[in-house]
Amino acid sequence: MRMSQLSAESGVAIATIKYYLREGLLHQGEQVAATRAEYDESHLRRLRLIRALLEVGRLPITSIKKVIEAVDDETLPVHYMLGTAHYAISPVVEAGEGEEWAAAREQADRMIDDLGWQVSRNAPGRDELAQTLVKLRQLGLETDLTPYAQAAHQLVTEVELDTIPLDGPRDAAVEALVLGTVLYGRAFDALRRLAQESESARRLKVSPPGPGDA
Amino acid sequence: MRMSQLSAESGVAIATIKYYLREGLLHQGEQVAATRAEYDESHLRRLRLIRALLEVGRLPITSIKKVIEAVDDETLPVHYMLGTAHYAISPVVEAGEGEEWAAAREQADRMIDDLGWQVSRNAPGRDELAQTLVKLRQLGLETDLTPYAQAAHQLVTEVELDTIPLDGPRDAAVEALVLGTVLYGRAFDALRRLAQESESARRLKVSPPGPGDA
Repeated sequence: MRMSQLSAESGVAIATIKYYLREGLLHQGEQVAATRAEYDESHLRRLRLIRALLEVGRLPITSIKKVIEAVDDETLPVHYMLGTAHYAISPVVEAGEGEEWAAAREQADRMIDDLGWQVSRNAPGRDELAQTLVKLRQLGLETDLTPYAQAAHQLVTEVELDTIPLDGPRDAAVEALVLGTVLYGRAFDALRRLAQESESARRLKVSPPGPGDA
Repeated sequence: MRMSQLSAESGVAIATIKYYLREGLLHQGEQVAATRAEYDESHLRRLRLIRALLEVGRLPITSIKKVIEAVDDETLPVHYMLGTAHYAISPVVEAGEGEEWAAAREQADRMIDDLGWQVSRNAPGRDELAQTLVKLRQLGLETDLTPYAQAAHQLVTEVELDTIPLDGPRDAAVEALVLGTVLYGRAFDALRRLAQESESARRLKVSPPGPGDA
């Protein structure tokens, strides 16, 4: 297809497509004449991935470049390619210092080991978990997160990983990982708040709201 | 206790305590002499609540005022007091327009009804869920969120609501709701990412990383 059709099918403006081509985020089309290049499905898939990283992952262009490099490096195993995208969309947490931090990080690491999870020592989730544990401890709140870990494990193994096509095109796998991580996370957060309200109403014996919610 | 001791025990600077007194966020102490007021446990609890709303809930002072008003209004049932805080810390989602939005909001409402949840028609979680459903549909992703709803329901009924003291001081209940909603949500998010990495490693048969994570 021509660039105009690629733009129409992807919903990405021609000027933007040209920018992605210049930045090397999108691979060049096949030059079929001096002023004409042909684009195909692989270009559509790449544009979908870039939009997912940009609009849902909210990544800056420099981070998108790193993810695209991992996608394009066919010698990089799929697991590490997915990890590059996964780490890029993770919240940035600075590792802390001092005994309190060390104890929390150790608790996070021990929990992951006890669960038998296979996770890199450098996974940003470890520091994210440690930071939350520090805060929970300081506030005197329960720090046994086992029920949360079990719920997360069940959702991931029974539902989430099945939504990622591990055998197909590399772009599609990364796109599914990013969209799923962000959007199902957002959905879970909303559902958890709704469930809290419902359970509060049940325990405090609030009569069901009427149609006008008086 | 004197204000200096209130400051020491709460970790809140005297100038900040005076600001909260002026703004009406903190109730006045008992005037025991012309230049001296006595503060008690209720002031400590209130300062804990303000800090929770400010530092963990990340609420602006105007929103904190509204939550404090709900706490101070003893005629407001506990469920609605908790709801005021809960809605204040929820992400702001603008209700959308058009058929696509209406269909998503209807799907969200139907799901909540099917689950038998008792949730106000005005709960911000409904629009949050609808917005996520619109995005999932546009991207051609699975919109059956039942497994997420079930996991959320289980965590909330078996763990989360038990951490909220519904019979004690009103400040303490709101504080526990805010801290629990935000911090356990953050913990779950980190755990979900870690579980994803682990399951990806398992499915893609990556050998366990060594101590140096080579």
